[in-house]
Amino acid sequence: MRKSICVLSGGMDSTTLLYHLLHDGRKVKAISFDYGQRHKRELEMASQTCLKLGVEHKIISLAFMRDIASNSALTSDMQVPHGHYEAENMKLTVVPNRNMIMASIAMAWAVNEEFDEIALGVHAGDHAIYPDCRPVFVDQLKKIAMIANFNPVFIYAPFLHLTKNDIAERGKVLNVDYSLTHTCYEGGAAPCGECGSCVERAEAFKISNMIDPLIK
Amino acid sequence: MRKSICVLSGGMDSTTLLYHLLHDGRKVKAISFDYGQRHKRELEMASQTCLKLGVEHKIISLAFMRDIASNSALTSDMQVPHGHYEAENMKLTVVPNRNMIMASIAMAWAVNEEFDEIALGVHAGDHAIYPDCRPVFVDQLKKIAMIANFNPVFIYAPFLHLTKNDIAERGKVLNVDYSLTHTCYEGGAAPCGECGSCVERAEAFKISNMIDPLIK
Repeated sequence: MRKSICVLSGGMDSTTLLYHLLHDGRKVKAISFDYGQRHKRELEMASQTCLKLGVEHKIISLAFMRDIASNSALTSDMQVPHGHYEAENMKLTVVPNRNMIMASIAMAWAVNEEFDEIALGVHAGDHAIYPDCRPVFVDQLKKIAMIANFNPVFIYAPFLHLTKNDIAERGKVLNVDYSLTHTCYEGGAAPCGECGSCVERAEAFKISNMIDPLIK
Repeated sequence: MRKSICVLSGGMDSTTLLYHLLHDGRKVKAISFDYGQRHKRELEMASQTCLKLGVEHKIISLAFMRDIASNSALTSDMQVPHGHYEAENMKLTVVPNRNMIMASIAMAWAVNEEFDEIALGVHAGDHAIYPDCRPVFVDQLKKIAMIANFNPVFIYAPFLHLTKNDIAERGKVLNVDYSLTHTCYEGGAAPCGECGSCVERAEAFKISNMIDPLIK
């Protein structure tokens, strides 16, 4: 049986991933990161999902990110850009090297726990805007994870070539409780409906013929 | 002019690297990591070296390492093994995925500062014991650093194929102030003389015909 550390943001992609891993029969622990994101509410949602599913959950504080990533709208007081996810101004929401940092720490925990895999929820919709969500990044991550420690760590990214719509449809089948997720970059309890993340989530629910439980 | 983030532990290898980078005409900032190592004194030494050389220095707290790396002698209350560096029991001093975590964070800072390089003090003496100091690891790190962000980050590891003795000899030429370094894993002000790190440092000073300023 594969033992997997799930990198869980608390958004809909990684939450669906967690359900997917459990459904697949893996032994799973989850790890989340507090990197100073203004949408910290996602961490509470991650905790609640893990509690509901009986999954061990660790939240890692990356307090230093506010200091070294001062030029990203997600980790500073800069305004979050509104509009469609793929537009140029969404690049302001890139946090430098975020996925590599998170994957590195998840790998360390995997090695310590004698787990053999880390699972990432990156998907095709992220490719255009986040360089560390592209297949080429995942390919290189796979390679370095094979040799960075005495034992290899496998990288599992089953949604890499799926769209967010595909993920929502997978979530429908897996009966994911999307009321325990958070997507909006602004960070309020109700989706702002205008940031790139909200726009994308709304599209995915619409196309999958689902009602978003966060919209009252 | 290359702009370089120097990963500075405060030991003799990375301190010599810092002098090397400055001598080479690079613009340099230094980054150190508090990962719960018991030899925290190395961080004070790193700060003093940067102060002396007029280099901007950032110490990043990785407080979570004590939590997720509970099976390493460097980040737990386990006893530090004594004896020669390459012996099997020195594997207890391996901290899972340490260099990948540190390199990832240094890369994030480089991207934020628009620096184009990170410099690492890994050397041939580390290869036998630390998987994330081997040339194959540095090769993979170079590859992922090219594509993890919008702009490439170059990895500079000029000591990769040098021994610690070679580094000491380089330090002699560069007039490195080794009184502002710390090597001993036990963490006291005076070297214990028995841990693998102390044994290796003593050999390097002896072969280079230098007196270690830390030995009174």
